[in-house]
Amino acid sequence: MKIGGKAYRTIWLGEDGWSVEVIDQTKLPFSFETVRLSHVEEAADAIRQMTVRGAPLIGATAAYGVALALRADASDPALERALALLGATRPTAVNLRWALARMRERLIELPAAERIAAAYAEAAAICDEDVALCRAIGEHGLGLIRAIAAGKPGKRINILTHCNAGWLATVDWGTALAPIYLAHDEGIPVHVWVDETRPRNQGAALTAYELGGHGVPHTVISDNAGGHLMQHGEVDMVIVGTDRTTATGDVANKIGTYLKALAAHDNGVPFYVALPSPTIDWSLRDGVGEIPIEERSASEVTHLRGLGEDGRPGNFQVTAPGSPAANPAFDVTPARLVTGLVTERGVAPASFEGLRRLFPELAQERAK
Amino acid sequence: MKIGGKAYRTIWLGEDGWSVEVIDQTKLPFSFETVRLSHVEEAADAIRQMTVRGAPLIGATAAYGVALALRADASDPALERALALLGATRPTAVNLRWALARMRERLIELPAAERIAAAYAEAAAICDEDVALCRAIGEHGLGLIRAIAAGKPGKRINILTHCNAGWLATVDWGTALAPIYLAHDEGIPVHVWVDETRPRNQGAALTAYELGGHGVPHTVISDNAGGHLMQHGEVDMVIVGTDRTTATGDVANKIGTYLKALAAHDNGVPFYVALPSPTIDWSLRDGVGEIPIEERSASEVTHLRGLGEDGRPGNFQVTAPGSPAANPAFDVTPARLVTGLVTERGVAPASFEGLRRLFPELAQERAK
Repeated sequence: MKIGGKAYRTIWLGEDGWSVEVIDQTKLPFSFETVRLSHVEEAADAIRQMTVRGAPLIGATAAYGVALALRADASDPALERALALLGATRPTAVNLRWALARMRERLIELPAAERIAAAYAEAAAICDEDVALCRAIGEHGLGLIRAIAAGKPGKRINILTHCNAGWLATVDWGTALAPIYLAHDEGIPVHVWVDETRPRNQGAALTAYELGGHGVPHTVISDNAGGHLMQHGEVDMVIVGTDRTTATGDVANKIGTYLKALAAHDNGVPFYVALPSPTIDWSLRDGVGEIPIEERSASEVTHLRGLGEDGRPGNFQVTAPGSPAANPAFDVTPARLVTGLVTERGVAPASFEGLRRLFPELAQERAK
Repeated sequence: MKIGGKAYRTIWLGEDGWSVEVIDQTKLPFSFETVRLSHVEEAADAIRQMTVRGAPLIGATAAYGVALALRADASDPALERALALLGATRPTAVNLRWALARMRERLIELPAAERIAAAYAEAAAICDEDVALCRAIGEHGLGLIRAIAAGKPGKRINILTHCNAGWLATVDWGTALAPIYLAHDEGIPVHVWVDETRPRNQGAALTAYELGGHGVPHTVISDNAGGHLMQHGEVDMVIVGTDRTTATGDVANKIGTYLKALAAHDNGVPFYVALPSPTIDWSLRDGVGEIPIEERSASEVTHLRGLGEDGRPGNFQVTAPGSPAANPAFDVTPARLVTGLVTERGVAPASFEGLRRLFPELAQERAK
């Protein structure tokens, strides 16, 4: 998608043909900067420090991280070390493990001399496939928006989203925002309620930034406001992304998603989750009980990045000095609160049967 | 309650016996400063500029403001001028009008020579009555905490609260926090999850500050985190304040309260609302439909007060530049989600019958 009139992906090969460039998402929305990754450690840092974030982009970055590692040392032990290093960066995102498993499977049987080229090719394939997946998710989600628009012709379609599941979280297009971009582009009058998404403000910072860049009408709201808007008929649908979905349709996503799902359910507002099939964890049945939730630094709650009165970005303390803080980064929305899962193969009910019908080959593998 | 080991109210007479001192709440939580009010104009400024805030404290400050005015001129016209000046500071605050009406009624028939002493006495009575009201709410809420503590002896009792309904919003004790202070003081191991309460951060700034000052264990969390904590058994009860309660037990409170009530209901966590009876609006039956919700400035969402890296407080922007924001300040929690209303006369079911049983004379007045 475009920033300042120029088309970008979130990750691409540098002009030297081997280093990897990414958008530094910690600098958004106040400045646009790119970062060059030359070593696997830099790729791991980029994931850990959230220079890159969003499950698909994390997977793509990890894949290129493997390629960077092999450039330095293409031996078996070096490959395993890189996989372990990258795999330990973020505990919740299943895409990370999926991408690393795929890289390992592709590379482990190759002679060391062939691994580097194969790793770059596989990482590029992961990126291209992600773009195609997101585009397909967008097409299926567009059908849902068209149906709502048909029911209120000429009226504004209000869509609430939480966190950032836009193109900045993927390689391009995004997941939850892909249907919105397509609807906007075909002239449906969509308007997006953008949850701020404390503590890291990915909604107010990233979703608002990318929607604004593409010209999609939107309004930032505090995370507290969505329930009130739904009570008053101001939300036609909710659509969010996910970091991991169980085989039974439970959905782990950014902390606070569960609260919006409860409010949607209480007010009869459809609640959709957009996901590429690699985020389905076919080994899990009980999301609340089984999905590990990352506890991040308290400083993300006590301090916030913003633009000071002097026009310079900085970190500001916003809590009472001396008060401790806790920072669970994700929560789990039970399948019973999810109207549908928007995948690259269509919209499924949030259930094992629903997912199995769309992905029989994956569901079968799980049964093994 | 205590700050730095010293017991405070939010408003008190100065050592000279006539000036009025208040805590400057615009400086909290980053510095503790008190302000001396010597003229009615200073009292009006303190209310207008939110040096003092919270409905009961605003009423108490206005009452002392009348006393300060009479010290300068105790004539009828001066009294009426003071009432008009103070009444115009926060025109929507019910307690403000109530306190000024009470002062006028007490003073207008007195000879000018007797008015000053009577005004100070009446202002002191308003303060003392507020303390007694809050203390009574605390005693009744304490019973609820004791019952939970009896069910898990020796274990930490986790209580979640939203916004600030503590002693800083009243003269002392607070409403929702009064039971917590009493439980802590009698040795029950309470721990408070403090919702940040965006956009104005009254939880992270004020509730955390006052709990910390009094030594009550607490942890600040983002507004998004409460549902997750409830899913994992980390919340034993929720207690919040209210700005207006309908005769049927629907509760208007700070935006986001409704989301926590939904999560409490979904996880079998008791959800209590603490209120002095003057906040019951006996004329209303349908909170969502009838209670007008104030839409405040978008700048409260786009900008936030915090402490910069240079140690100085300031306002900083936290949303994507150019993105609009909306700021509904309250929401309504339907009575069906409220376990009980904690009043100065006891704990009532959130229903007309429940409230009528505790306040028959008020309910009767409504029926007229």
